[in-house]
Amino acid sequence: MKTSFAAALRGLCLCAAAVAIGGCATGPTDSADALTGPLSIAQQGSFFVGGRDVHSDTLSTVPNYANSGTVTVDQMYVHYQVPTHAKPLSLTLIHGCCLTGKTWETTPDGRMGWDEYFVRHGFPTYVIDQADRGRSAPDIETVNAVKLGKAPVSQLPGLFAASHEAAWAIFRFGPEYPQRFPGEQFPIDAQNGLWQQMVPDWIASLPTPNPTVPALSQLAQKLHGTVLISHSQAGIYPFQTAALSTQGIAGIVAIEPAECPSATADLTPYTKMPILVLFGDYVNLSPRWAPRLKACRAFVDAATQAGGHVQLVMLPDVGIHGNTHMMMQDRNSLQVADWILNWIGTHVGTPTMTAGS
Amino acid sequence: MKTSFAAALRGLCLCAAAVAIGGCATGPTDSADALTGPLSIAQQGSFFVGGRDVHSDTLSTVPNYANSGTVTVDQMYVHYQVPTHAKPLSLTLIHGCCLTGKTWETTPDGRMGWDEYFVRHGFPTYVIDQADRGRSAPDIETVNAVKLGKAPVSQLPGLFAASHEAAWAIFRFGPEYPQRFPGEQFPIDAQNGLWQQMVPDWIASLPTPNPTVPALSQLAQKLHGTVLISHSQAGIYPFQTAALSTQGIAGIVAIEPAECPSATADLTPYTKMPILVLFGDYVNLSPRWAPRLKACRAFVDAATQAGGHVQLVMLPDVGIHGNTHMMMQDRNSLQVADWILNWIGTHVGTPTMTAGS
Repeated sequence: MKTSFAAALRGLCLCAAAVAIGGCATGPTDSADALTGPLSIAQQGSFFVGGRDVHSDTLSTVPNYANSGTVTVDQMYVHYQVPTHAKPLSLTLIHGCCLTGKTWETTPDGRMGWDEYFVRHGFPTYVIDQADRGRSAPDIETVNAVKLGKAPVSQLPGLFAASHEAAWAIFRFGPEYPQRFPGEQFPIDAQNGLWQQMVPDWIASLPTPNPTVPALSQLAQKLHGTVLISHSQAGIYPFQTAALSTQGIAGIVAIEPAECPSATADLTPYTKMPILVLFGDYVNLSPRWAPRLKACRAFVDAATQAGGHVQLVMLPDVGIHGNTHMMMQDRNSLQVADWILNWIGTHVGTPTMTAGS
Repeated sequence: MKTSFAAALRGLCLCAAAVAIGGCATGPTDSADALTGPLSIAQQGSFFVGGRDVHSDTLSTVPNYANSGTVTVDQMYVHYQVPTHAKPLSLTLIHGCCLTGKTWETTPDGRMGWDEYFVRHGFPTYVIDQADRGRSAPDIETVNAVKLGKAPVSQLPGLFAASHEAAWAIFRFGPEYPQRFPGEQFPIDAQNGLWQQMVPDWIASLPTPNPTVPALSQLAQKLHGTVLISHSQAGIYPFQTAALSTQGIAGIVAIEPAECPSATADLTPYTKMPILVLFGDYVNLSPRWAPRLKACRAFVDAATQAGGHVQLVMLPDVGIHGNTHMMMQDRNSLQVADWILNWIGTHVGTPTMTAGS
């Protein structure tokens, strides 16, 4: 394992081993070039992974639709694009709390999203909607069972919608709504475009691990080598996926994970692929994020000691300042994307060379 | 109005005035050509239209998320692609009941969806998720209000999930599950790919007109000339949109609408743009669809008498057999797409020439 991983690193790029910023021959092409001109797509489309059939007698509380029958739930929607002259390594984008795959598309102020930017850099790119979110159907049986008097109110699912005011602090636009951190990069004038993309979250009513996790495992195996790029609440999913099977996981990029694996867990799966845990700015000013960062540091230290190639990077430490939790939508989002692509180019082998694939 | 509409028709194509199938110089290019080779995209992305801010005290029933705050609901998600060398006329695809914009993407058996096919034919193509469906957030406040004891059970929203068995008959795969109509074209071996894309429907808890309707009106005006292509439960939306304002609506293609405007309504808006109402096969064998077809015929007759350019076409009458309600996913889906593109090429003017734009 170690040998092939080292070979992959040697075969790739001789940038500084630790944290490379730009200047790497295998890094992305110049941003300006990548942003202009027609986008040439070899293949695009969508499909679902996973799901299970459930028979229910509480499917409907409206006329004309039957109460009893079979529905499919817990599947995961995947939209993908493969550019012409694609690299063999693909990227899988896994959105966070209260959001959908829209997270990675056009920014609230109308700039190119990472979904297209990564395709323009040659990566087959897969964007998911988590199970029970967005185009992946949630299971409404229990809501109907309560309405029909077949179940007590206490069985209603635990749901939440993050408010603008709560999201403001969670996304670190500032200490609290509507104050801003100095130098903060979110395009705040277009905030409505973010509020429009937030959706209710059924996660508290779902099993652990979230059905998204086995679906990600199926997807990774289908792709024969993909970097699982997660955000926020989904931060733990790539790790849980790797714990199920390392097959098909060429690397993990956890962007501001709400949770890292425990430092005292079995860390063996996390020694099988390069891992980046990435945080933005103002983290220690946030009572929500500071302890999460601390826990992730403990994981990274332990996984490194266990022989893993695991890094935790704070963007300000590599000269990129002002990033919020929504760094894929910040005004400098493509600068952050370039940095991540350089990290991938430096640290992740091609699928055939990657340990665990 | 009539003059410019006639001029648009003259300026376009001299195919048979009534129902043209193929052979039209302005029709789509050959299917085989359109299906092969890289897809060249000038612009792609996504945005939301509409929505309203709501202050609520029942946003959450789980820890760590506040109960009180502001959320945005009733917005409509739009994903779009503009090919290089695009035509000035765009197409807007509006999915039906229990489904999302996924309807128009890759078919359950993995063939190209109409979303890409239309782009490959030069049309800027806009795919929506109806308000409160898919990536467009539903409003869960009342579910939480009931769980928190702040509202009676009777206020739970009316929700339904169409079962496989119910959908089988509604989508006319056969008279009832699992019987099939002879010669029916749905790729039934891949039915799981359809069940995976079905989502719960909140429509009964939404106002009339559905918030999707004013959002479609905003979108049409933004696009300066688009054909609203609806399916099934959304069939009435383009008509309701035209009743709000005909601005930006270059034409309407209602695929198996669950409802047409009443024949006794004010039909003036429907004389301002070419309209096609399209049905597949086996309609008169369906107790659900036969009366809807009859009502649509009455509308079409009345709108024609009122001076409209309105057609109702049954696919078997133009030589295309075996189509279910899910004709955009049937095995001959691209044959149906070609027929629709020919109808549009023949009957819909370019945006600057179209009445009402």
